[in-house]
Amino acid sequence: VAVKRYVILAEGAFDEEAKTATGVMRYAESPTVAVIDSTRAGTVAGDHVPGLVSDVPVVSELGEALPFEPTTLLVGVAPAGGKLPETYRTAIIDALANGLDVESGLHDFLGDDPEFATAARLSGRELRDLRRVPHGLNVPTGANLAVPAHTVLTVGSDCALGKMTVCLELDAEARRRGLASVFVPTGQTGIAIAGWGIAVDEVISDYVAGASERLVLEGHERGGDGVILWIEGQGSLNHPFYSGVTLGLMHGSAPHALVFVHEPGRQTIDGDPRYAIPSLTELIDDQVRMARHVRPAAVVAVSLKTNRLDEDAARAAIAEIERETGLVADDPVRFGAGRVLDAVLSARR
Amino acid sequence: VAVKRYVILAEGAFDEEAKTATGVMRYAESPTVAVIDSTRAGTVAGDHVPGLVSDVPVVSELGEALPFEPTTLLVGVAPAGGKLPETYRTAIIDALANGLDVESGLHDFLGDDPEFATAARLSGRELRDLRRVPHGLNVPTGANLAVPAHTVLTVGSDCALGKMTVCLELDAEARRRGLASVFVPTGQTGIAIAGWGIAVDEVISDYVAGASERLVLEGHERGGDGVILWIEGQGSLNHPFYSGVTLGLMHGSAPHALVFVHEPGRQTIDGDPRYAIPSLTELIDDQVRMARHVRPAAVVAVSLKTNRLDEDAARAAIAEIERETGLVADDPVRFGAGRVLDAVLSARR
Repeated sequence: VAVKRYVILAEGAFDEEAKTATGVMRYAESPTVAVIDSTRAGTVAGDHVPGLVSDVPVVSELGEALPFEPTTLLVGVAPAGGKLPETYRTAIIDALANGLDVESGLHDFLGDDPEFATAARLSGRELRDLRRVPHGLNVPTGANLAVPAHTVLTVGSDCALGKMTVCLELDAEARRRGLASVFVPTGQTGIAIAGWGIAVDEVISDYVAGASERLVLEGHERGGDGVILWIEGQGSLNHPFYSGVTLGLMHGSAPHALVFVHEPGRQTIDGDPRYAIPSLTELIDDQVRMARHVRPAAVVAVSLKTNRLDEDAARAAIAEIERETGLVADDPVRFGAGRVLDAVLSARR
Repeated sequence: VAVKRYVILAEGAFDEEAKTATGVMRYAESPTVAVIDSTRAGTVAGDHVPGLVSDVPVVSELGEALPFEPTTLLVGVAPAGGKLPETYRTAIIDALANGLDVESGLHDFLGDDPEFATAARLSGRELRDLRRVPHGLNVPTGANLAVPAHTVLTVGSDCALGKMTVCLELDAEARRRGLASVFVPTGQTGIAIAGWGIAVDEVISDYVAGASERLVLEGHERGGDGVILWIEGQGSLNHPFYSGVTLGLMHGSAPHALVFVHEPGRQTIDGDPRYAIPSLTELIDDQVRMARHVRPAAVVAVSLKTNRLDEDAARAAIAEIERETGLVADDPVRFGAGRVLDAVLSARR
């Protein structure tokens, strides 16, 4: 198998908000050899993202990345405004001309752009649109209820809480312990990291549960009988925009257990005062009530995003939420995934 | 405005399961002048559908329908197996060649078929794919919370309970009483009946709430301030396949009130023993718990599908469910929509 080596296009935007770029650098098996962001050229990646230990060079254009022998250009941030700026177009065409494949998580598919499609054909390279959903999706078959795997879905109180990251940390910890474990990607960053998956929010709503079932079946094929599947959650049941994605994913993946993800102190959805976040105990009850329609599942642990708190405040918040919910709570990114994994494993018995 | 006159293509399938065909015949303003079904040719429509009073002729092919001066061929049933059979292709091409427009609620769009597209262009007629969603959809803006209308959504315990029909009956009864009232279509049959709407199950799951918000805004534009909007429900929160559509529609339409639809005695989703239907009081609580994340809304009445019960059994079931839920219950199709409408109006105060 040829080794994939990424150069990540993050022009003007390589910071902690660049979730696909930083997610791939943190978690993908394939290494990143350079980041393109002319506004930060001459630095290293670790300078811009808290907690990212990385001396990967940030360069101003593709040409400067070529000495590091990348095989694949990853479009790692969505440009503001939607339309693809000229700097992106140039970098993508240059990459194809220089023998690189191109991966993109953008809503607008590169493969549908005649210029890119032609350039890819001429160079014999591949354009991979990570959000493009497969053909032949349908409603679930019910096979999700019979998969010989232990399926764990991350749910939560809002978007942008790190539901994917929690799955990746739990998966890594489980594999460190020698357990059969597979991360199941449901969005473009997870797909970029793991190299497979379906962006379920791009699937027509009729088939979102069916796509989720298919992902569980594929996760089992990859991990074998008895595997633990960590299913990347999307949105939240109380999210005014994305709750349909969340519930379809829940019912289609038919989890055995749920890990509830929250940020202590977050009180409104995405900071919008029109949408208050209810108490955790109410929200946890909501998850259980909705999950039961396909398969009874409990929330077995709470995973907290505490990166805006100092360490004492983080530990206090964790203790407070353990008291409030009666569940194990922890921040797997900051303090390790061990306690949350223990809670998942002990609930499996 | 030219009057639309339908001929409905329902080859081999004109019975009570032909929901689009019979829905249009019962509820659309535009008249149906003939039905094409060679297996029932020589009869009238009312012979095949219980409760449908109609002497519209059933004919064996389009040519026999032309004397009744149809303007529009409606593809009124989905052919079994998915692929469009030759009889359908012939009828569609013949219709275009004879100066008719063609409307279709099929999953596969007629407009994407080169033969149909060419025939439409040559004849100067229109192909209308009712399930094709508009461009430019996105997530909700929050305008759904500020629409000066009273929004009522039908929810329920399963699919295929008549959630659309209940809305249409309530809308008709409200208009009979002189109230400003608009039926808001969210599926292909509703769109065929009302002539506008979006098939929300065809929208990518990311935008299903946004599409639902857009429908409420358009309903208000059509009905004016103070209008009652009857939003056609889809699926159910406890449905293992379609719950994502249901919750996205609920949160995007942000209803003020819910009417819960059920069939007495139905115990499993679509007859599948893997998916038991919980008690009505539990399900009603589920609706209220999910709705509150966008806007608090109560279930204000229960609408029952009693057509498989004799009249005494139907009245007994209604009384029993009133006791069980503490809500007004009735079958609006069988016994009139007055009591359920009264319950909606009195809860609005």
